[in-house]
Amino acid sequence: MTPIAIDAALVERMIVEMGAIGAHSGTGVWRTVYSPEWVQANDLFARWCAEAGLTVSRDAVGNVWGKLQGTEAGKSIVSGSHIDTQKPGGRYDGTLGALSALIALKVLKAQFGAPKRTLEAVSLCEEEGSRFPSANFWGSRAITGTISSTDPETTIGYDGETIASAMRDVGLDSAAIPSARRDDIDSFIELHIEQGPILEHANLPVAVVHAITGLRHYRVKLTGEQNHAGAFPMDLRRDPMAGFAEIASGVIDTAHRMGRPAVTTIGRAEVYPNGAAVIPRSVSFTVDARHPAPAQRLALYERHEALMLEVAKRRGLEIEWSSQIEKEPCLSDRGLVDAFQQAAVSQGIPHMTMASGAGHDTQQMAKIAKVVMIFVRSEGGRSHTPEEFSTIEDIVAGISVLAAGLHSLAY
Amino acid sequence: MTPIAIDAALVERMIVEMGAIGAHSGTGVWRTVYSPEWVQANDLFARWCAEAGLTVSRDAVGNVWGKLQGTEAGKSIVSGSHIDTQKPGGRYDGTLGALSALIALKVLKAQFGAPKRTLEAVSLCEEEGSRFPSANFWGSRAITGTISSTDPETTIGYDGETIASAMRDVGLDSAAIPSARRDDIDSFIELHIEQGPILEHANLPVAVVHAITGLRHYRVKLTGEQNHAGAFPMDLRRDPMAGFAEIASGVIDTAHRMGRPAVTTIGRAEVYPNGAAVIPRSVSFTVDARHPAPAQRLALYERHEALMLEVAKRRGLEIEWSSQIEKEPCLSDRGLVDAFQQAAVSQGIPHMTMASGAGHDTQQMAKIAKVVMIFVRSEGGRSHTPEEFSTIEDIVAGISVLAAGLHSLAY
Repeated sequence: MTPIAIDAALVERMIVEMGAIGAHSGTGVWRTVYSPEWVQANDLFARWCAEAGLTVSRDAVGNVWGKLQGTEAGKSIVSGSHIDTQKPGGRYDGTLGALSALIALKVLKAQFGAPKRTLEAVSLCEEEGSRFPSANFWGSRAITGTISSTDPETTIGYDGETIASAMRDVGLDSAAIPSARRDDIDSFIELHIEQGPILEHANLPVAVVHAITGLRHYRVKLTGEQNHAGAFPMDLRRDPMAGFAEIASGVIDTAHRMGRPAVTTIGRAEVYPNGAAVIPRSVSFTVDARHPAPAQRLALYERHEALMLEVAKRRGLEIEWSSQIEKEPCLSDRGLVDAFQQAAVSQGIPHMTMASGAGHDTQQMAKIAKVVMIFVRSEGGRSHTPEEFSTIEDIVAGISVLAAGLHSLAY
Repeated sequence: MTPIAIDAALVERMIVEMGAIGAHSGTGVWRTVYSPEWVQANDLFARWCAEAGLTVSRDAVGNVWGKLQGTEAGKSIVSGSHIDTQKPGGRYDGTLGALSALIALKVLKAQFGAPKRTLEAVSLCEEEGSRFPSANFWGSRAITGTISSTDPETTIGYDGETIASAMRDVGLDSAAIPSARRDDIDSFIELHIEQGPILEHANLPVAVVHAITGLRHYRVKLTGEQNHAGAFPMDLRRDPMAGFAEIASGVIDTAHRMGRPAVTTIGRAEVYPNGAAVIPRSVSFTVDARHPAPAQRLALYERHEALMLEVAKRRGLEIEWSSQIEKEPCLSDRGLVDAFQQAAVSQGIPHMTMASGAGHDTQQMAKIAKVVMIFVRSEGGRSHTPEEFSTIEDIVAGISVLAAGLHSLAY
């Protein structure tokens, strides 16, 4: 197909201008949902959509839509991502996906005119949960109809406010949330920075994402016998720290030996009573284990659980755990993966196919549409920090793949 | 020699009556230095000394002395321990040593009259540091002349007060501390509960202590690279938790394999930022390693340090450590060990010889006197808890050994 010409200078200008809204800590951005910065960012997105010749609308939760009407009837093909950030996040996480969709539609319209299938760009209102910790995916959950009627009054911010009141503050009525539901979306494509170092290590600018990983968070407590660090011989101890260390080493090694994309992380540990000269009574910790393939994922969990039980039993420790979070893998649509791989080939963009180890709005959208994601290389794999960075060249490569894929689907 | 008759009912009555002063959490005691409970406990100790026919005096820091004057000139033979407790501690830690000394002198005077050598019982004012964290061994440090002139105003309590003001509150003048120094103590013998399970496992009531362990506290920080728990592959991580787990397992295993009396404890760990879905940036932890034999102690430290360096290097982690506490082993006087072993044999008390893994006032007193300790079996090895417990039979056995040993030295 014809090469699609992305204006790198325009892309850079848009990123910088959008990144100035809620600018924080140099290159960082602090833009939580329903904040003044969030309003301003969405207004800018809406203005750019209008300037690109898209029909702008806003739904009940504040997602902003820019539509390029197709000449034929049928469900829409939608691309976008979230406009809210961590506190502070960077300029790219989320925002880049909304801007890329807008730029792709602008370029397609300019270069090819009206599509057969309707295309839409969307700025999703909330993904990070950085103002309301239980509100993750608020925007995409509204679209998929998975916000319950009690959620607006029971979703509480870090400062104690309800999300319903935060919505009122920006002129939105939470009673109208059901109207945001869509049943006319055929496909959802999300471009996002990778948030890991795999593309950097593979020396590639872009990946097509075939699956978002499944994950389980265990919360584990090992209890032994608290005693004097000097007076209690090693052979008579029931030391939960010794058990914890063996389990932590073991689960990390298990995931490492299973190979990519298996990952297991012990990110959190609390020792009680946490005194230098006291054999602890207990160690509580989390185990975050992820794999995108259903069978290998279960094998990973089984190995972790078997190890935890064996170590606890052998060391005479009590062990208890609960599974705090359980997320099934989200598989991309095979046809969309093929289409965007072909799009990369058509634009001469070197690329790979990979799984996402992080969660995304795409997981929500998969409930009502076929999905796929495009990843753009992140320097150092950094994310959720003001230091996240992708080059304009890589971003342009990603938008080219997005636009070419949308072209193949819609024209 | 003649069996020494210890009145078990009297011993029990004294323990219960003394334990009622500062009673806390059932069988616990909360009696910090220079508190009203501490004053009351020392007054009771002084009254009991006087009733036993001992000459009572108090020194500048509030140590209470009961003297049984010898018929010959020469330095004193002193026994005792500390009257202050943890918050809360039990009825036995410290207090039992002060009461045992008093009871031993009372019995010796009643059964054998005046000794040739002067005997003294002492209630030491502060060992635990439970009100003033840097005031450990305050009582014995005053006796050995190792409290500096600036210590009273710079030793700060958990509630912010200086130890000088706390002394004033109970009528003591910190300027007089140098007068508490003694240079006329020949031997110091401290009876104490074991605080570990070695006697219980050996099924013996009493031990003679040949050494107090040496110890080093390392404060270690391992730093890696903080990243997203999902997006960062195992093979590219620099995960300080993985390094910590390997080090913790390794040092614990090293001490275990070296065998008794080597002990190594990881009692404290702090993870940063401590989020379930974040590969940590750093893990800070303590390593408490102890051995009473100088050469093996250094070997233990060398193995720990070599392991820490190797793991950090192999995993690409930064490591730094400092040695927070460094205590040389304190060896008992060979002649006193023999004398108290013989005393146990003379009274038909089954016993063993062992090292102490915990610190004691005896370490301080060793700077000015020959020392030895007597341990009494602790149920479950418990200490620093209201649940600590020793049977009256075992306590009487310990006091018999103490009294018989003092008899052999002084009569």
